[in-house]
Amino acid sequence: MTLAQQMLTLAHEAKEAARVLANQSSAVKNDVLRAMADGLEREMPALIEENEKDLAATRERDLAPAMVDRLVLDEKRIRAMADGLREVAALPDPVGEVTRMWRRPNGLQVGQVRIPLGVIGIIYESRPNVTADAAGLCLKSGNAVVLRGGSEAIHSNTAIGAVLRRELERYNLPAAAVQVVTTTERAAVLELLKLEEEIDLIIPRGGEGLIRFVSENSRIPVIKHYKGVCHTYVDADADFEMAEKICINAKVQRPGVCNAMETLLIHKDIAETFVPRIAQAMRAEGVEMRGCPITREFAEVKEATDEDWGAEYLDLILAVRVVEDMDEAMDHIARYGSLHTEVIVTRDYRNSQRFLREVNSSVVMINASSRFSDGNQFGLGAEIGISTTKLHSFGPMGLEDLTTRKFVVMGDGQVRE
Amino acid sequence: MTLAQQMLTLAHEAKEAARVLANQSSAVKNDVLRAMADGLEREMPALIEENEKDLAATRERDLAPAMVDRLVLDEKRIRAMADGLREVAALPDPVGEVTRMWRRPNGLQVGQVRIPLGVIGIIYESRPNVTADAAGLCLKSGNAVVLRGGSEAIHSNTAIGAVLRRELERYNLPAAAVQVVTTTERAAVLELLKLEEEIDLIIPRGGEGLIRFVSENSRIPVIKHYKGVCHTYVDADADFEMAEKICINAKVQRPGVCNAMETLLIHKDIAETFVPRIAQAMRAEGVEMRGCPITREFAEVKEATDEDWGAEYLDLILAVRVVEDMDEAMDHIARYGSLHTEVIVTRDYRNSQRFLREVNSSVVMINASSRFSDGNQFGLGAEIGISTTKLHSFGPMGLEDLTTRKFVVMGDGQVRE
Repeated sequence: MTLAQQMLTLAHEAKEAARVLANQSSAVKNDVLRAMADGLEREMPALIEENEKDLAATRERDLAPAMVDRLVLDEKRIRAMADGLREVAALPDPVGEVTRMWRRPNGLQVGQVRIPLGVIGIIYESRPNVTADAAGLCLKSGNAVVLRGGSEAIHSNTAIGAVLRRELERYNLPAAAVQVVTTTERAAVLELLKLEEEIDLIIPRGGEGLIRFVSENSRIPVIKHYKGVCHTYVDADADFEMAEKICINAKVQRPGVCNAMETLLIHKDIAETFVPRIAQAMRAEGVEMRGCPITREFAEVKEATDEDWGAEYLDLILAVRVVEDMDEAMDHIARYGSLHTEVIVTRDYRNSQRFLREVNSSVVMINASSRFSDGNQFGLGAEIGISTTKLHSFGPMGLEDLTTRKFVVMGDGQVRE
Repeated sequence: MTLAQQMLTLAHEAKEAARVLANQSSAVKNDVLRAMADGLEREMPALIEENEKDLAATRERDLAPAMVDRLVLDEKRIRAMADGLREVAALPDPVGEVTRMWRRPNGLQVGQVRIPLGVIGIIYESRPNVTADAAGLCLKSGNAVVLRGGSEAIHSNTAIGAVLRRELERYNLPAAAVQVVTTTERAAVLELLKLEEEIDLIIPRGGEGLIRFVSENSRIPVIKHYKGVCHTYVDADADFEMAEKICINAKVQRPGVCNAMETLLIHKDIAETFVPRIAQAMRAEGVEMRGCPITREFAEVKEATDEDWGAEYLDLILAVRVVEDMDEAMDHIARYGSLHTEVIVTRDYRNSQRFLREVNSSVVMINASSRFSDGNQFGLGAEIGISTTKLHSFGPMGLEDLTTRKFVVMGDGQVRE
């Protein structure tokens, strides 16, 4: 069989499995999820042994220590995967929800009902826990999943997949509901991305390079975010103490993630007092500031160049710009932002409402740290990803985002005149 | 300027206009829509004159009479366009709707609010009324629109666009909110389909060839349906009179549209009585039936070949198959259907519910004609299209489908621990 045929067969089996999965009750799906969790804990020694093979292979290559660390499966991480599946079992099932229903003048009852999307393809890197996390969310929402992890985690992913598939079979469900691509050829991804008849949605998870590769080569709809360039705008009327606390948290609490602040915008009326204050606070936290000319009048910081606006540092670096007013701040965000998360700190009612209304990023906040921009923090349950493109979903994505809605119509013999 | 630069400039202007449009009140948008309607009626002689140029050009080509007819703009059709815009003005504005809002344990208020998508690209054929209809729906939902009609309607589309743009300017809104591509080169479409930074969604409207061309060449998400192969399944327990009425309506009332029935499935227990009855009724309406071997035992009809299952005739032709039971009917639909609209006719409660639940086409009906599968018939207001792909929208699309939802978060200084 050619690689193309292999991928087609695998995706086609997933599509058949999806039809079966779509009609399972929540009770059955939850039982399977909990059985999968137990299975992972039971198979812990075998999983660690397979993970050892992946780790051994990295020693022959020159991988960054952070990347190797992400690859490790130990008892704690396997228990965390299992608990993740149990948490998904405890979430409400989105499938079958009637989101609205109404009656037409001719007596037809028309409504919309949530259904699974069908087959979800997940293309990801390094972390083997994604295998269980993504499979769990897809199963709960009634979808089959095709998982294609990185070649560096191939033994770990295959072993986790085998445990999940065994539990599906024990419940007389098709193992093909969780398909793990075991070939490490990159061409396999290209073949998968062509299968628009079999796969309904692709979610890439990883660095910007992977995401661009997937989205440029896919015939299938892709939900993605390239990067998070989050802005905090401190308004003329802000409470300085609150503004400082929010800015420090947004920049420092976990600088390497997409919802950390990358650019700080400050109203010119408060530059003289707020710039020195935040510069001192940032310095104390080890943050390197890069400022516009006005910023540099009030604090000794490096000069920001054009590349700093719109940069995603993922590090203890912060671009700072003093703006004329809120309109200039919003123009800056529209020009350099990534549609991820933007924050205003203000006590002014009118400005808070205008910012909320006029800034159309996927998450817009008043007086809170951008670090809250996350499915778990919002209470959506486990997060399957975040979308900064506007189609289908925009912002953090939970179970509901793995569904669509069909129309249902109940009549008693109506025909059209 | 190269064609690529022209298209980029035009799309970029639309993107700038979209930012302005997103923040207009419903009152302003409705005023503009009504002014556009008045403008079209006022400019009627000029529009008819421009349309004459398109019609003259068709005389030199060998266009089908139906195609020429679709191209004609007369007083009646211009008034219908104007009334269409007034109807859109009267619809509720989806923008700004808070679809839900909740409070987190830390006091953060989190919600989701409808916002426009941004810039919509419409690629369409022949009918010049699409220019006004699509522009109206996009304007109402706060989106800018890039319109690319067929070369055969270029004078008509440009003239309609000019009227709409003039009214935008009279209300101090950017004319670029309605961009009409005036070059007739097909390469212009290819250039537009690359502009993923500027255009948020592409909706192709036309034949299957156009839709395939657009969806295979687009970097931008495309909402589409290729075809409508609608099934009606007449269950063992159906009321024959109702079943006959529904089948005749679904096949005959307007056979050339996507929600007409193309395949009839009949439960074997009623084949002996229902097949002759429906065959006689269809014959009386001039419908050619093509049947499976069992169908042909009970009625003198042509033999159906493999190509008949899944065929979209758009004509007075009907494929008929006798099935073992409802499961076989649902299997047939899953295999040959196009995810458009499927109907069951039955008096059996359990079967009606199973069919509704297990058939995952975009519209599923009990005891009604498939001809109701339409945004207007469902009460969604004017229809921008119909989607048979599951991402973003599934089924008939109204104004709401031209929006997405952003998250809004209101805090009072919360930071993440």
